[in-house]
Amino acid sequence: MSRIKNLREEALAFHAARPGKLEVRVTCPASDRDDLTLAYSPGVAEPVKEIGKDLENLDIYTNHANFVSIVSNGTAILGLGDLGAAASMPVMEGKALLFKTFGDVDAFPICVNTKDVDKIIEIVELTAPTFGGVNLEDIKAPECFQIEEGLKARGIFKGPIFHDDQHGTAVVTLAGLYNALKVVGKNIEDIKVVANGAGAAGIAIIKLLMSVGLKNVIMCDTKGAIYQGRTVGMNPWKEQIAAATNPEKYSGDLAGALVGADVFIGVSAADVLNEEMIRSMAKDPIVFCQANPIPEIWPIERAFEAGAAVISTGRSDVINQINNVLAFPGMFRGAIDVRATDINDAMKIAAAKAIAECVSAEELNANFIMPSTLNPEVAPAVAAATAKAAIESGIARNPIEPALVAENLKKRLANQYK
Amino acid sequence: MSRIKNLREEALAFHAARPGKLEVRVTCPASDRDDLTLAYSPGVAEPVKEIGKDLENLDIYTNHANFVSIVSNGTAILGLGDLGAAASMPVMEGKALLFKTFGDVDAFPICVNTKDVDKIIEIVELTAPTFGGVNLEDIKAPECFQIEEGLKARGIFKGPIFHDDQHGTAVVTLAGLYNALKVVGKNIEDIKVVANGAGAAGIAIIKLLMSVGLKNVIMCDTKGAIYQGRTVGMNPWKEQIAAATNPEKYSGDLAGALVGADVFIGVSAADVLNEEMIRSMAKDPIVFCQANPIPEIWPIERAFEAGAAVISTGRSDVINQINNVLAFPGMFRGAIDVRATDINDAMKIAAAKAIAECVSAEELNANFIMPSTLNPEVAPAVAAATAKAAIESGIARNPIEPALVAENLKKRLANQYK
Repeated sequence: MSRIKNLREEALAFHAARPGKLEVRVTCPASDRDDLTLAYSPGVAEPVKEIGKDLENLDIYTNHANFVSIVSNGTAILGLGDLGAAASMPVMEGKALLFKTFGDVDAFPICVNTKDVDKIIEIVELTAPTFGGVNLEDIKAPECFQIEEGLKARGIFKGPIFHDDQHGTAVVTLAGLYNALKVVGKNIEDIKVVANGAGAAGIAIIKLLMSVGLKNVIMCDTKGAIYQGRTVGMNPWKEQIAAATNPEKYSGDLAGALVGADVFIGVSAADVLNEEMIRSMAKDPIVFCQANPIPEIWPIERAFEAGAAVISTGRSDVINQINNVLAFPGMFRGAIDVRATDINDAMKIAAAKAIAECVSAEELNANFIMPSTLNPEVAPAVAAATAKAAIESGIARNPIEPALVAENLKKRLANQYK
Repeated sequence: MSRIKNLREEALAFHAARPGKLEVRVTCPASDRDDLTLAYSPGVAEPVKEIGKDLENLDIYTNHANFVSIVSNGTAILGLGDLGAAASMPVMEGKALLFKTFGDVDAFPICVNTKDVDKIIEIVELTAPTFGGVNLEDIKAPECFQIEEGLKARGIFKGPIFHDDQHGTAVVTLAGLYNALKVVGKNIEDIKVVANGAGAAGIAIIKLLMSVGLKNVIMCDTKGAIYQGRTVGMNPWKEQIAAATNPEKYSGDLAGALVGADVFIGVSAADVLNEEMIRSMAKDPIVFCQANPIPEIWPIERAFEAGAAVISTGRSDVINQINNVLAFPGMFRGAIDVRATDINDAMKIAAAKAIAECVSAEELNANFIMPSTLNPEVAPAVAAATAKAAIESGIARNPIEPALVAENLKKRLANQYK
C-alpha cells in the first residue's frame, strides 16, 4: 500500500525540502591540517604530476572513472515534451539518485541549454577529463541519435556512451520478452512482432530484438506502418527500419498490422490499442504497453479480457513493470569496473538475459515476468553479465573476474551510507 | 606536529585509496517504492512542470543554487604550469572538498579539454541550468581574464562568477594587509606598495587595494617595473595597470622600485627578494611573500633579520599564512544564500574585512595577522559580510538578514555528515 495521498502536493514538498535530491560529498579525511596538506596543497601536486606524465593515472588518483554525466537538453522530458533544459533538472537529479542507489555510480546532471547537436557533442568531448562515461537522457529524436552516433563516430570520448531512452528501454523490453516467450512457449525466431511508436525507444527496441534473432517485424507510427517507399513522415532512422523490416511492404494501419501478430510492443501513447485489435492477434498474444503514465490500453484488465496471455506496462502499480532502472545502474557499474570503452550490443543482450534470469524458473508465470525494481540481486547480476560481455567482446581494459564485479557492487551498496 | 613523513608517497596513497576525493550523494529518502514514486517517475513530473512554467522554480525544487562548477583547463595548475585539463582533476576535486568542508557548497569539477576562451565561456553558459555559480580555477593569464570578462559582459550566466586565483587571492591579501597596517600604524592611503608578479593574482590584488584607497603603487614583472610606454612583455591588462599606477613612470628593476616602499607583495617566484632590498624599504616594512611552495625570500627568517616588521607567506608551516580557503567558501555561501547575481568589489572588500576581524584586537600582533585556516568562525563571518555587501549593492535577489546567513552555515556544517 502506498503512503502517498496527493501525488502532486507531496512530490513538490519532497523536492522543496532541502531543496533537490543530490549533494557533492567528500570521501577522504578532511578534518585537520595534515588531511588538507595531503588532499590539497602541497600534497595534491603529486597526483597532478603523475596524471600530467600519463593520462592512465587519472583513474588511479581521481574519481574520474566513476563520474558519469547525465546530459539532457530537456527536449523530451518524460512524456511531457520540450520544457527546456532547466526543467529537466529534477529528472536528471532523480536519474543520478537511481544510478547511486542501485549502481553506486556517481552520476551528475549536466543540463545543457541548447538544441545544437554539435554543441552537445562538443560539451561531452571537452568534459571528458571529469567524466568517465556519459548517459544521454530526455533528448528528442532525431537529435538523440545524431548525438550518440556523432560521439561514437568521432571517437574522442573514450568511455561508455549510453542513451538510456534508447538502449535502457531496449534492454528491459528484451528481458521482458525473453520471459514472456518462455511463458507462452514461443521462440523469438518464429514470432511476428508489431511495434508502435518510432521514436528513440521504439527503434532501439526493434534493432536489439533483431540482433537476437527476431525476423518478422512491422513498426508503426502515427502515420501507420513503416515500409520501404513510404514518403510521409520519414527520417534516416525510419528509412533504416523500413529497409530491415516489413518485407511485404504492408502499408496499412496498426490494426491491420496486428492481425496474426504474436507480440505488440507499444512505446507510443494512451488509447491506441483496443480489444478488437488484441483479439485479431495470434494465439497467446503478448501485449507490452509501455506508454507513460497511461498505457496504450487502460485499464490493463481490458487486455486480459481480450485474451492477452502476458501483459506489461511501465507502471509500478501493475504486474510486470518494465522499468529501465533494472538495467542502467548495473550496466554502467559493470562497464566501469572492467573499464569498457563502450556499451555494445553484446553487453545489452547480456544485461537483458541477466535481468530475465533474476526471475527463477519456479517463479516465472504470466503475472511475474520481471524482477522487482527493488530486488537487490538485479544490479549485481546485470553488472557481472555486462562486464563478462565486455571482456568477451575485447573492449575491457581491466578484464577482472565478472563474479568480482557483482561482489564489488554488493559491498559498495552495503557501505554506501556508512 | 605533522604526522606526514613522506609527502609524495603519502599524498599518492591518499588519492589512490578510494580513488579520488568526491562522490555524488543522495540527500532525500530513496529506500522504498513510495520514495522513488516521489523522487522519480511519476512524481518528478510535478517539479518539472513548475520549472517549465517559471524558471525561478529551479532553485525551489532542485539543488541548482548550491551547485557551483569549478572550471579549469589545467593551463596553470598550482605553480606547475600547463599540464593539461586531466591533470587538474585532483586540484579541482580538492577545491570542491574545501568548498564543501568550509562552506557546505556543492562544488563539482568541470575540467575542460580546450584552450579556446570562447568554448570555455560557452560551456559555462550552456550548463547554467545545472550550476548556480562558477569558480574559474588554474586557467593561465590572459585567458582567465578574457573568460571572466567575457562571461560578465555577455550577461547570459546569471549567478556568481569568480576566478579564485585572482579575486580569492586579492581578498585574503587585503585581509592580511589590513591587519599588518594596524600592527605598524600606517594607513593604506599613505603607503607605497610594490607588487612583484603581474599574472592573474598580482593584477587582481593591485586593483582591489586601489579600490580601498591605495594610491602609490608600482607593479613589477620579470622585465622590471610596469610603466606607461613600456613596449616589451605588455598585454592589455598590464597596460591598464601601467595607466593606473607608477605615475612617475619608474622604469628600473624591482630593487630600485622597492627603495622607500612600505609594502612588498610577491606573487612571483622563489629568490627574487633579498636582505638588501628589504633594508632599502621604509621604516617597519611589510613583506608578503606568497610564491608557492617557496616564498620570494627563504627561509623567512632572512626577512626578519633584514628588518621586516610583518611577514606573510602561503605556507602552513610559517606564521601568518595567507590562504584563499579563508575567503572563497564563505563568499560563495553568502552570495548563494542571498541569491546574489555577482561577486562584486564591495563583497570582496567586506569579505577581506571580515577575515581580518577574525583576529581580535587583543590577539593581533606582528606574528598573528591572519586567522587559522581551520578557525570555524571565519567562513560564517565571511558569508554574513559578503551577503550584507551584496544586499547593500542591490544585487541580492533574496535579501535575508546577514546574521541568518552565518547561522545557516553553522547549522549546515554541524549537520553535514549526519
